[in-house]
Order: sequence, then C-alpha cells, then structure tokens
Amino acid sequence: MPVNFSVTSREKRARAGLLATAHGKVETPAFMPVGTQGTVKALEQRELEEAGAQIILGNTYHLYLRPGADIVAGAGGLQKFTAWNGPILTDSGGYQIFSLSELRRIEESGVVFRSHLDGSEHAFSPESVIDIQRKLGSDIMMVLDECTPYPCEREYARKSAELTTRWARRCKEFWETSGPLHGWGQALFGIVQGSVYPDLREQSAREITAIGFDGYAIGGLAVGEPVESLYATVEQCDALLPDDQPRYLMGVGTPENLLEAIDRGIDMFDCVLPTRNARNGMLFTRRGPINVRNAQYKTDSAPPDPDCPCYTCRTHSLAYLRHLFVAREILGFQLATLHNLSFYLWLMRSSREAIQAGEYAQWKRRMRAQLTQNTDLPAARDVRHITTA
Amino acid sequence: MPVNFSVTSREKRARAGLLATAHGKVETPAFMPVGTQGTVKALEQRELEEAGAQIILGNTYHLYLRPGADIVAGAGGLQKFTAWNGPILTDSGGYQIFSLSELRRIEESGVVFRSHLDGSEHAFSPESVIDIQRKLGSDIMMVLDECTPYPCEREYARKSAELTTRWARRCKEFWETSGPLHGWGQALFGIVQGSVYPDLREQSAREITAIGFDGYAIGGLAVGEPVESLYATVEQCDALLPDDQPRYLMGVGTPENLLEAIDRGIDMFDCVLPTRNARNGMLFTRRGPINVRNAQYKTDSAPPDPDCPCYTCRTHSLAYLRHLFVAREILGFQLATLHNLSFYLWLMRSSREAIQAGEYAQWKRRMRAQLTQNTDLPAARDVRHITTA
Repeated sequence: MPVNFSVTSREKRARAGLLATAHGKVETPAFMPVGTQGTVKALEQRELEEAGAQIILGNTYHLYLRPGADIVAGAGGLQKFTAWNGPILTDSGGYQIFSLSELRRIEESGVVFRSHLDGSEHAFSPESVIDIQRKLGSDIMMVLDECTPYPCEREYARKSAELTTRWARRCKEFWETSGPLHGWGQALFGIVQGSVYPDLREQSAREITAIGFDGYAIGGLAVGEPVESLYATVEQCDALLPDDQPRYLMGVGTPENLLEAIDRGIDMFDCVLPTRNARNGMLFTRRGPINVRNAQYKTDSAPPDPDCPCYTCRTHSLAYLRHLFVAREILGFQLATLHNLSFYLWLMRSSREAIQAGEYAQWKRRMRAQLTQNTDLPAARDVRHITTA
Repeated sequence: MPVNFSVTSREKRARAGLLATAHGKVETPAFMPVGTQGTVKALEQRELEEAGAQIILGNTYHLYLRPGADIVAGAGGLQKFTAWNGPILTDSGGYQIFSLSELRRIEESGVVFRSHLDGSEHAFSPESVIDIQRKLGSDIMMVLDECTPYPCEREYARKSAELTTRWARRCKEFWETSGPLHGWGQALFGIVQGSVYPDLREQSAREITAIGFDGYAIGGLAVGEPVESLYATVEQCDALLPDDQPRYLMGVGTPENLLEAIDRGIDMFDCVLPTRNARNGMLFTRRGPINVRNAQYKTDSAPPDPDCPCYTCRTHSLAYLRHLFVAREILGFQLATLHNLSFYLWLMRSSREAIQAGEYAQWKRRMRAQLTQNTDLPAARDVRHITTA
C-alpha cells in the first residue's frame, strides 16, 4: 500500500487518524497549505514546518506549464525540487483547466485547453495527468475529473459525473500498468462528483468506490453553493465512502466550514483562503477574522492574536502589520501568511485533540462561537468557502 | 557619548573597529541593509539577524510619510515599532526629497516638496528632520544635506556644499537644545558634500568637522560619477576626517566598491544593491554575480553559491530559484534577498578578519579577482555603485 491510513479515535462521525506516506506521517484531520507552483506563496519551506504543516498541495496544471514535469522529474521529484521533504498531494489539474485556462473542448478522451500564461494549446487526458503526477512524484495523486460549476443543470451534472467515472477508471488502469517513476510509492485518490444532487452523488460515490482507490475526495463543492448544500453533501458522502479510508474535501474552506466538515467525517482539506486572504491583509484569529488594514489598528501595540504562538504574533504588533500592508511591503504578506497557516494548522491539531479526548462536539460549539466574536469585519462571517486556484 | 567608536586593528588605511550604540555593538567595517519603510524588503527581522546584520538603515522621508513619526514615537521608537531590536541609523530624508519627491523649492530655511505618494505638500528644515529622527529614536541620526547630482556645475556644487554646512550647524544646534526623546542616547553624524571637486570637498570636510559630530558621512557619491572619482574622493576625505571617529560612505556600492572603500578608511556602508537586485533575480556570489533567470540554470541542481552557508544556499537549487523567478513567486524575492545580504555581510566580516590578521591587501586582491570570475553575466562587472531610494 502506497499510503497507510488508520482511524485512531472517533467521536460520532468525527475521526482522528494517521496517514503514513513515503515522505512522512500526516495526522488527521489535516489541512494542506496550497503550494500551487511548488511554493506556498510568501512562505519558506522551513516556515511551513514551523507553522505545523505535515503535507502540502501542489498543482499539476501549473507545474506542467512551469517549470514542466520533466524538469521536476529530473530533479528527483517535487519534494527534492522544492526542498519540501514532507508529503505532497497533487491535484489533477482538472479544476484549473475549467477555471483558469481558456477551455477549448471537453471530449471523451480528455480536455483541450489554452494556457493562461501564453495561450498555447495543450491537452490533458486521464492517462497524461497520471503520467505528469508520476513525474512529479507526489505522495498522493488525484484522478482527472470535471468540477461542475454552481448552479449546474441536473442533466449536465449527470453526464459530467459519468464522464468523471469513466476518466477515473482510465486513470486507475493507466496507473496499474505504469506505476511509480521514482523510488517510492504513490497513492491514487478518486473524486466523487454529482453537484448538489443527492442521487447523482450516490451514483458517483458507488461507481468511484467500486473502481477502488487509496482514498476518496469530494469534489465539485466550494464553488458557490449554499453552505447547507455543502454540509448536506458531505454528510451524504460520509455514509457512502469506505470508513477505513481517508476522505478529502477539496477546496474547503473557512474555519467554520472545516469544523463542520470534520464533524461529518472529513479527514483532509485544502484551501487558498488562509494564504490568499493573508496577502489581502485578512488575518484569522481565535476571536474571528480581522482586517489589519483597518484604521483602528494604527497605534495598536497588541499582536494580531494574543493566544497565538506563531512568530508573527510573538514578534509584531497590529500597528506594524497595518503599516506594512498600507505601505505594500512584501514582509506583510510573509507575516500574515505565516500567521494564517499557523492558525489553520492549530485548528486542525486542536480538533484532533478534542476528538481524541471525546470532547469534539462541545469544543466545536465553543470554537464556533469564539470565531465569530470579532466585530472588526462584519462581512467576514459571510466569507464562505472559496475555491482553489 | 551616545556612540562609542574605537579602531581596534589597522592595516594601512583600512580599519577594523567597534561601534557601541544604545541598541548594541556594531563591528566595522559594517554594511547596513536598507530598511526604507521600517522593513528590509522581503526579509523578516529574525532573518536579518541570521544574515549577520548588526545595524540597519531606516528612512526619515518614508517613515515621516508612512506611518508618520508620531506613530513610531508612540510605539516607543523605530526599534520597538519594527521589532528590530538592534541599532538603527536613519538618513535625513534629504536624498529622497531630491530624487523621489516632486521638489518644489530649496530655500535657506529648508526644502518644500510634494509627497511621491499623494502629491501633498510638505516642508523639511534642518530642525524638523532632527525632530523626526528624535521621534524615530534611531541610534544614529543624519543631518539634512543637499545631495548634488552628477555631473554638477562647480558653482552649484560650491553653493550647495555651503548650504549643507549651514544646515549642519542648525541641526547640531537644534539637537543640543532638544536631546533625545526616548530613554537612550542618539548620535548625530555630519555629511561632507562638494561633488567631485577636491577643493570643495576639502572646504566641506573642514567646515563640517569644525562643527563637530559623532561621526562623518561622505555624501554626494554613487550618483553616476566615474568609479575613479568615487575612490579619489573617498581617499581625499579619509585624510581630512578625524581618524578616531566612524566614517560612513553613503549609498555605496558593489562588492568591489566596498573592498576599495574599506582600503581607503571607510567603516560603514549602506546600499540597496543587494536587496533591490535580489528582487530582480541577480545574486551576488563568491564567483561573481549571476542572473538566476538565465536558461542555463533550468536544470541546475547546485546552490547559487556553493561556499555560502545561508539558508537559501543550504536548501535550494538554482533550478528551483529560477522557477520561482520565472513564475514571479514572492518566495524568490525572500530567498534571493536572504542570500545577497548574507553575502554582503560575509564580505564585511571577512574584510574585518583580514584586517585583523594584517592580510587585507592580499585578501582584497584575491577576492576582487574571484568576484569577477563568473561569466554568466558579463554586464555585471559594470554594475557600479547605485543609489539608495
């Protein structure tokens, strides 16, 4: 088995577990910082470790375009190329093709698209995205899928989910006849689609699990659907996916979203929210999100989050952070990113500990109340799950 | 005495010394990383220490505009505001007024200028720039001067240097009647002007030293003059300035410039070259400067400078750095800045050790040959001293 997953504690549907990969162990629930182009923006690899990251995400679409899969393969894989020596999950690039590139055609064979960088034409097939991920050497590879938008016509969602199933089968077959390129095992995860239609989700989950993968992702969410649909779909998938394998909710979300999804059996997350919002001056704190640009922080000598042990909070005042953002200094991006990821990864560790102690339900309740306490940013409570880029 | 300077070793005109300030000791020759807006761009304060910085430079013009001197004063000074707890030198803002803002009028009383940020009108006088630097609480303050451009008419240079002298006298007088605002001593340095005219330099040096300051800067260089004029002017000033006080060559320069200036009795430097060029992908190495964007590094697994012990060189390959720059990733700025400053500060430490060992002349010869060895960037040898911003 390329990855070994075991659930070590449970509280109702919430689970704490251990995911062992060729590049190290991941304690779940786990949040994966998004390292789109082989770097989590504005953060050094040693700072990722410092923030508590145990696994990061890389992006097949971006890395295929730049620097190119062969260059990464020649360097000995993405871990060696980037000097992040821990586990890496790569997504299949499907999401970026549909959201970022100029999409040309979806065909049975795969997708034809134009690069968002230079307009050049490229094609991805289920086989080629696995081949690229073999070259990248990620610990966990994702199948090629179509991520449907929201809202999505039922008929389109049905046909799309069926195509995703056929692509998933081809990914698996290609992987079985090829295998890893570098000296370590790589896991392959399937993706459940079906938009917000319960019967389509059920059909997709049954077909994808029938193919058999090392883990399962729930895709097609965090694309603008109401938060109730997000939670309902996760809850439904929780009952349909094998209990003894890892479940990964793609592209989600806010701290609240994560807490609710953990409560519904999710083990793994990725989202650009903590990193992208950091670069916009929004800091997640234990008392809710704040916008460090706000004039109220002009002379505030307190750290962004007094309970946070990260370097940013140990070292700097809100007033200094505000100055850095107003003056558009790069250091603001660095410090805010380090803090936000430290916060997200603390939230995951704390969730894990609460599950282990059998106190998750009450911890979640308390934390949710706390996380919406801050009034600096009234709109922040409405910052819902946003999507990866 | 607000600063205590002692020359501890000499080799001909080259000197190794110790400058004690309220916020710590500085070993000379010293290079001061430029922290224009209260941050050395793209570098955390702990990384400045890691790179070996013992003193950094802040900018009166920029900090006056943003966040404002009163905010910094309220935070307890620039050291507390930025959490850089070591020594800080602030320049007077004169250079920025003449180079960056829309200059309105130079008058006997001072200068009237428009902010480069929003066009608002402001005035600096010799007294007000000292008052701002009192609020900033820098360990070393600089007098207001006019930095003449190159080339500069003799008559203009003469009048300008005389104005600089009168302003210097007023700075000193204001400082004597005001004194420090925070709980520590601040030193005040005078600035010698006179463009490239030896008799004007001599006159300026005699007048400025007659007023009496805690240290002396040579200004008005690194503005485009031939490198021979730079060295000749430094050599001349070396003979004119008090031997037992620190000498600071403003805005200089390349590694070669620094080595030659040390050989002519300079103790302190500042320059944006290592940090600004880092953000353009130019790395200084022990074998000469390289441009990490070059295609030749596409698959190069070697570190930028194999002999450099900095985090960047210990951790990353040229191929990865090239990727970061091509993909315009912030991490490229961070890693390149950390390396370049580590290199500059290593160069200063090594110069100091060579002086202490009485081997500076031969070390400088060997180092100069080595620093121009690299052929990746033929133009790099011509990268001369450039000016602070």
